[in-house]
Amino acid sequence: MASLRDEALHMHKVNKGKLTTQSKVPVTNAEELSLAYSPGVAEPCKEIYDRKETVYDYTMKGNMVAVVSDGSAVLGLGNIGPEAALPVMEGKSVLFKSFAGVDSFPICLATQDVEEIVQTVKLMEPTFGGINLEDIAAPNCFIIEDRLKKETNIPIFHDDQHGTAIVTVAGLINALKLVGKSFSDIKVVANGAGAAGIAIIKLLYNFGVRNMIMCDSRGAIFEGRSYGMNDIKERVATFTNQEKKEGSLEEILEDADVFIGVSVAGALSKEMVSKMSDDAIIFAMANPEPEIMPEDAKAAGARVIGTGRSDFPNQVNNVLAFPGIFRGALDVRATRINERMKVAAANAIASLITEEELNEDYVIPGPFDSRVAPIVAKSVAQAAMESGVSRIEVDPEEIAEKTRRLTQIDNK
Amino acid sequence: MASLRDEALHMHKVNKGKLTTQSKVPVTNAEELSLAYSPGVAEPCKEIYDRKETVYDYTMKGNMVAVVSDGSAVLGLGNIGPEAALPVMEGKSVLFKSFAGVDSFPICLATQDVEEIVQTVKLMEPTFGGINLEDIAAPNCFIIEDRLKKETNIPIFHDDQHGTAIVTVAGLINALKLVGKSFSDIKVVANGAGAAGIAIIKLLYNFGVRNMIMCDSRGAIFEGRSYGMNDIKERVATFTNQEKKEGSLEEILEDADVFIGVSVAGALSKEMVSKMSDDAIIFAMANPEPEIMPEDAKAAGARVIGTGRSDFPNQVNNVLAFPGIFRGALDVRATRINERMKVAAANAIASLITEEELNEDYVIPGPFDSRVAPIVAKSVAQAAMESGVSRIEVDPEEIAEKTRRLTQIDNK
Repeated sequence: MASLRDEALHMHKVNKGKLTTQSKVPVTNAEELSLAYSPGVAEPCKEIYDRKETVYDYTMKGNMVAVVSDGSAVLGLGNIGPEAALPVMEGKSVLFKSFAGVDSFPICLATQDVEEIVQTVKLMEPTFGGINLEDIAAPNCFIIEDRLKKETNIPIFHDDQHGTAIVTVAGLINALKLVGKSFSDIKVVANGAGAAGIAIIKLLYNFGVRNMIMCDSRGAIFEGRSYGMNDIKERVATFTNQEKKEGSLEEILEDADVFIGVSVAGALSKEMVSKMSDDAIIFAMANPEPEIMPEDAKAAGARVIGTGRSDFPNQVNNVLAFPGIFRGALDVRATRINERMKVAAANAIASLITEEELNEDYVIPGPFDSRVAPIVAKSVAQAAMESGVSRIEVDPEEIAEKTRRLTQIDNK
Repeated sequence: MASLRDEALHMHKVNKGKLTTQSKVPVTNAEELSLAYSPGVAEPCKEIYDRKETVYDYTMKGNMVAVVSDGSAVLGLGNIGPEAALPVMEGKSVLFKSFAGVDSFPICLATQDVEEIVQTVKLMEPTFGGINLEDIAAPNCFIIEDRLKKETNIPIFHDDQHGTAIVTVAGLINALKLVGKSFSDIKVVANGAGAAGIAIIKLLYNFGVRNMIMCDSRGAIFEGRSYGMNDIKERVATFTNQEKKEGSLEEILEDADVFIGVSVAGALSKEMVSKMSDDAIIFAMANPEPEIMPEDAKAAGARVIGTGRSDFPNQVNNVLAFPGIFRGALDVRATRINERMKVAAANAIASLITEEELNEDYVIPGPFDSRVAPIVAKSVAQAAMESGVSRIEVDPEEIAEKTRRLTQIDNK
């Protein structure tokens, strides 16, 4: 049997990539041509010129997301550049379409300059209903996202941050139910001060967690730490580690209820886990090797373990979040994806697992659970409308129904 | 029956635009996901990182053209901006796909600044195998095209210039056969110093025409004219109107064999036509009303008349050129579209009409002639290889055969 490497190369080569464009209308005779192109096409042009918002009615914009990357932090491969990043971005577009019927298009940029990336995306705004930033290294990813949120009127979403955060928190919602703890009482320790770690910390704050400490390779981050700081860590320090505890990850982990790993293989030992509180919850998401292997974590006393891998239970897979989130945001023509929409997405994902089904190995729905995108889309759209960032009102049930119709995923 | 306006608006609204993206591979289970996305997708990424040119093997790049506009000169509507231009650019993408299986994607830019447009397109180069510039006003279109040709390594083609020029010249090749004149002997007068007019003049020069005069609203353009000049007209003056004739269009038209109109309705009167030489050839391409109506031109003695309209014979329709040109350029991974490739395209289009078929009302194939894109693709690819701008060698017959397979046009 062919290796995964051979199979993957063959599949990409034989298809020449994975994404194609398709016309929604036939153009095979003069009449069809006169509608899709000159002279008929002038009519929607004139309408949009008169009322710019009708671009959502007459063009692809309202269902089109750009997947934008500079190739600076691709998968676990690092800074491989925009050409080498293209297969990932095409793959992302394929997932958008397959999971929630969202059209999307990869834009790999030949620059890693923040200002150039921001300018380019801004200039492309007329074509797109939303922007999914992907595989852009920290700290640029934070700056680019912040700038674009301020300087555009369409949703900007850095999936490596928020997708991961939403799915992790969804898993944590269910894990806490299982162990009978609540967000307001738990102590959370996060290891790895990269894009995903910080987004998780921020989202947990929105869920009411106050006892949080983030660690980097030099131990606990606290306000006023004099070594190894940057803008982002300074910001994190303002709302975490209120007691300004100093110490190694091992020291900090004592009595922690939750470990969030977005760091490196082997960062968490059995001994460290054994110092955590009872019913410890561990999300060890280093890829491809987690911070601790699930069997070791269990042996050391952890109750719930999630990883980024499909061959272990409780996979934190972003595909549970981004297709439905953009489906919901696009369908109400949202101007942004705000915190309430992210909270709604996490709650929606968690809600699919009933109390009866809930167990240590099932706190997160599987990536091919076809119920996920519809409920996420519906909940995100509702949150957008309630928080005043939608351009139109739509019945959320209609959005769920539409998503069910569009998803090509059919196994639970 | 509904009006064209109602039908066009309805069609655009009901479909929410005309272009969609589609996956070439299914992603409905874990195994398919592991090939199209993580972890399998890392393999083509690594290959491309090692050898950048394999981006053509493993991604969509080699079949993907950006249709780029700033919305500054859209159809006859003028400067309507990027959002209002989007229906036209989607339509263009639909034509690329329908006529020659070329994937393409509209990028409407929220700027009309030359430098910003150039920078944006350059930064997007990793994603695209070619760039079709569309509906950008003169003189910016010339500057942008020149800059991008120098600063990128993919084909850059401003269709409003070169597409129109290629099809017009194709018609002229056949018209000259019909009247028994040759490029080297004719006198050509062009009216309208915009993008298309200048491109036609340049291409005619490459076909050996030396006796050419271009007119603008102030009459003949000549080297050293002190009024109403600009960079482009200065350049045109260096290789036209060698005798530096001054005068109105009417005066200049005396004894002309060919009139090329890319100006305004009514610019050519019957009286003016009657002063042209015997067997005059007229391409009156003002839209939607030509410089002179075909019946008036005939009555005044013209022998062959072409227009931009589908309801008259000899329609100069760019769709005869751009799909096949990009098909051929992409299939040999061309670094540019050079003059030899444009000459080859014009000759290819003209060659489809046999001597027996040739007549006053049939010097240009119809827009739905399914033989056009394949022969254009083949000829352009061959010219690219012969002129050293291709990255790979491909049997031109294979390219013709592939184009025949991909075109969705089936009536001659």
